[in-house]
Amino acid sequence: MNDSRKVPRLPSVKRLPSYLHELKLLRDNGQQMVSTTQLAQKLGLEAIIVRKDLELAACPGAPGVGYSVQSLIAGIENFLGWNDETPVFLVGVGNLGSALLGYRGFAEYRFNIVAAFDNDQNKVGTEIHNKKVYHISQLKEMAQKMQVKIAVLSVPCEHAQEAAGLIVDAGLKAIWNFTNTPLAIPKEKEVVLQRVNMAGDLAELSVRLSGKLFNDTPDI
Amino acid sequence: MNDSRKVPRLPSVKRLPSYLHELKLLRDNGQQMVSTTQLAQKLGLEAIIVRKDLELAACPGAPGVGYSVQSLIAGIENFLGWNDETPVFLVGVGNLGSALLGYRGFAEYRFNIVAAFDNDQNKVGTEIHNKKVYHISQLKEMAQKMQVKIAVLSVPCEHAQEAAGLIVDAGLKAIWNFTNTPLAIPKEKEVVLQRVNMAGDLAELSVRLSGKLFNDTPDI
Repeated sequence: MNDSRKVPRLPSVKRLPSYLHELKLLRDNGQQMVSTTQLAQKLGLEAIIVRKDLELAACPGAPGVGYSVQSLIAGIENFLGWNDETPVFLVGVGNLGSALLGYRGFAEYRFNIVAAFDNDQNKVGTEIHNKKVYHISQLKEMAQKMQVKIAVLSVPCEHAQEAAGLIVDAGLKAIWNFTNTPLAIPKEKEVVLQRVNMAGDLAELSVRLSGKLFNDTPDI
Repeated sequence: MNDSRKVPRLPSVKRLPSYLHELKLLRDNGQQMVSTTQLAQKLGLEAIIVRKDLELAACPGAPGVGYSVQSLIAGIENFLGWNDETPVFLVGVGNLGSALLGYRGFAEYRFNIVAAFDNDQNKVGTEIHNKKVYHISQLKEMAQKMQVKIAVLSVPCEHAQEAAGLIVDAGLKAIWNFTNTPLAIPKEKEVVLQRVNMAGDLAELSVRLSGKLFNDTPDI
């Protein structure tokens, strides 16, 4: 590991889209400069945390004046690689998968599901929310053709591992896993695994609601 | 704060549903005992972590024999309060909300959406995935009648704060927030806020994919 490299902290990275969201609202309201205090208030954070988080955007603030809204937006988008649209495949067009195909929330982050895949011949060839469904056997060919590196995985959990294998074989480099199942992918494949652990969220919610306490502070 | 009280660590709590999932598969296969090593392998964790996590289930393991699968399931469900079905309301029957109404993944954790709410008169009175849609003005009355304490929030983000206010006024005690917006609720209301930060996930995925490094280890 190269120690001179800037190592971002995970909670800071996870907060960046919230900054982006607020900054775009400010921009759309015509505001040009913003202070740490204002952002801290909007996001319910300490000002010191905001200052630390915004270091990732590599956008210098001026004392007493604050940050340029436009430069912060550009800096965060640049850090996240969100300047350009990211094309993505969705694998598994069931109940949840269909919903994700129509979910408009992704567009704010230029995350664009360009095609969907399933093994059900009744679904192949149809369009769901204007996204065409292909047979899973076409995954590799389409990934090369469309230069796609990220897959959203939304198959039933008993097929999650098998589908993940197909995704890795097709040469994709990241899986956003919406199933209830952790995935096992050999390290040498260098595939990024990101899990939406809804059940884990529910567990956290249940335990908080029961009055049991945590050592950790929650993410925003 | 009572220091003698057992304080569970958040990552451990978030992993419990994955244990539950694996343990139920083992049970359905007729396996009666399970070792830490086997669970560690299945979940891609260190055995020491598994042992620590399972302390929350308050189920004693026997050296060389392992844990009783059935007792572990009962212990985890008991810790999470998942022995009984949890009735839940969904607020905001748009694209994502409709999908969540039909999402079968919640049933494994006995999380049951019993009614949905919206302010769109075209939706009120209809049924989506067999769940009836009520007008948002009926929230308080229904919460009292059906003894519901948890709301899933899936309105468009510009209405998130307002809808959260209505949920709190209706006396609910937890909000599972699927919108892109952090919520501000006065502390004295003692409402548990749990956020599904999909944009934050995406940010993490983007940064990992770009080869930037974290100090943190990922959740499973």
